[in-house]
Amino acid sequence: MGSVKLFGGIEGGGTKFNCIVGTSPNDIRREARFPTTTPNETLDEAIRFFQQAEADFGNLAALGIACFGPLDVTPASPTFGFILPTTKPHWSNFNVLGKLKSAFDIPIALDTDVNGAAFGEWTWGAAQGLDTFIYLTIGTGVGGGAMVNGKLLHGLLHPEMGHIRIPHDIQRDPYEGWCPFHKDCFEGLASGPAMEARWGQKAETLPPNHPAWDLEAHYIALALANFIVTLSPQRIILGGGVSTQKFIFPMIRQKVVEILNGYVQSPAVNEKIDEYIVPPALGARSGVLGAIALAQKV
Amino acid sequence: MGSVKLFGGIEGGGTKFNCIVGTSPNDIRREARFPTTTPNETLDEAIRFFQQAEADFGNLAALGIACFGPLDVTPASPTFGFILPTTKPHWSNFNVLGKLKSAFDIPIALDTDVNGAAFGEWTWGAAQGLDTFIYLTIGTGVGGGAMVNGKLLHGLLHPEMGHIRIPHDIQRDPYEGWCPFHKDCFEGLASGPAMEARWGQKAETLPPNHPAWDLEAHYIALALANFIVTLSPQRIILGGGVSTQKFIFPMIRQKVVEILNGYVQSPAVNEKIDEYIVPPALGARSGVLGAIALAQKV
Repeated sequence: MGSVKLFGGIEGGGTKFNCIVGTSPNDIRREARFPTTTPNETLDEAIRFFQQAEADFGNLAALGIACFGPLDVTPASPTFGFILPTTKPHWSNFNVLGKLKSAFDIPIALDTDVNGAAFGEWTWGAAQGLDTFIYLTIGTGVGGGAMVNGKLLHGLLHPEMGHIRIPHDIQRDPYEGWCPFHKDCFEGLASGPAMEARWGQKAETLPPNHPAWDLEAHYIALALANFIVTLSPQRIILGGGVSTQKFIFPMIRQKVVEILNGYVQSPAVNEKIDEYIVPPALGARSGVLGAIALAQKV
Repeated sequence: MGSVKLFGGIEGGGTKFNCIVGTSPNDIRREARFPTTTPNETLDEAIRFFQQAEADFGNLAALGIACFGPLDVTPASPTFGFILPTTKPHWSNFNVLGKLKSAFDIPIALDTDVNGAAFGEWTWGAAQGLDTFIYLTIGTGVGGGAMVNGKLLHGLLHPEMGHIRIPHDIQRDPYEGWCPFHKDCFEGLASGPAMEARWGQKAETLPPNHPAWDLEAHYIALALANFIVTLSPQRIILGGGVSTQKFIFPMIRQKVVEILNGYVQSPAVNEKIDEYIVPPALGARSGVLGAIALAQKV
């Protein structure tokens, strides 16, 4: 009997990297998390992790990376696999894929962190059997990945769902917004840093009955309603720091139904909203397991 | 030499139906337009048009219909081809596809009016060679169709892009909005009836230097910016009554660039916006020619 082929997965987030070796959620052989610093330092740490794994378990079959953006995910592009110009220090124009390729002579799959998480949830989690859905992360930043007709969405570049404009009632919420590009876009109003700037304390320290959460659910629901009428997803998976606050899900669902006001005529929205807007089934591992799933398809 | 196979196309709009017989924009053999009244009356007129065409040209190879919604476009659904419950009198729960099938024993393709228009523009018009783009119509109503990864987008039901929420500055524009479901959603603020209600005259009678157009371009640009960061289209085609006002395109393009503020790092947006937001190449025939193209693929 031959040995099982192992895969390497990297979730490259803006604040931390997560690496695993394995084949599925039930077969994770090794895992590591470390902070995102400079690109060379961070990727060198990832490379050492997988080199050690290969020394211990044998060669990996393939590697997948689900990386923060803006990221060039167009295979035909001369800068495929590069981080695009970004306000994040050190990372602009860094060739993430090239750095990994120079260390490992195996197939390497690449997509955005949120598309990776979407693919992980589709393969093993809350999106199994669907062909059109959204994975949204709301935390330090806000971003969305999507599958449409069974394929991950890239289009022109890749979506930047955190940056839609939504109604902002400055009577109710005079906070001007946090986004350096757009001030009060969705991310500018609803990300973790926006909550902290508005209320003067970190989101995770705000109790469930604090008015911050009603406002947060309001903004998230406005954004979700927009995504629903634009992309017509069969489900929305809400990950990131917000998804660890379980009490916010019923608030968001109720507000989405109120905002759509019966216009989207589907039992999924009007009768089974509890199954329509859900937390990730893979918890904090959607992205890194998605990277494994991407590696298995490369 | 055998005779060319002819196809029938129907664009079923909320105010008028358009029918053609032919094979392409350069080969339209017959065409008719008539008002949308009750479903039986309107579809009977379409059926007579195609029956006469078959009497004159021989049997049609297939029929396509691109129909207003809400429409059930899920082939596996028991109500596939039905109009869903709607505020439009007489049409709720009418079996459009069944009515046509009972008259013609040939393959019949069905999609939304806006997906039909998208498919027409993809086959012969402004979206040739693309795989991910949006066709938006702004007129009596506002709606959007989309192709993603080379396939038309349906998802849960179909998109209703006219109903996204966008920022509404009631200091600048105290008009409350026209949408019976959402008041000041995109359609509620930017459709033809909204313009008429706000300014007291029909949109087409407002001169190009009227402030109505700057506000209209503002709302359209906000919506387009949202669609761009959500769906990452390679192009947006703007049809409907608004697209006949050529002077509004430069206004919309400039505002989209200002709203995105450099965040979407693509030359398509930042350097070639004139080729990114465009009118339909097939003019008012995108939908009905799209219906022909759908029939050719059925």
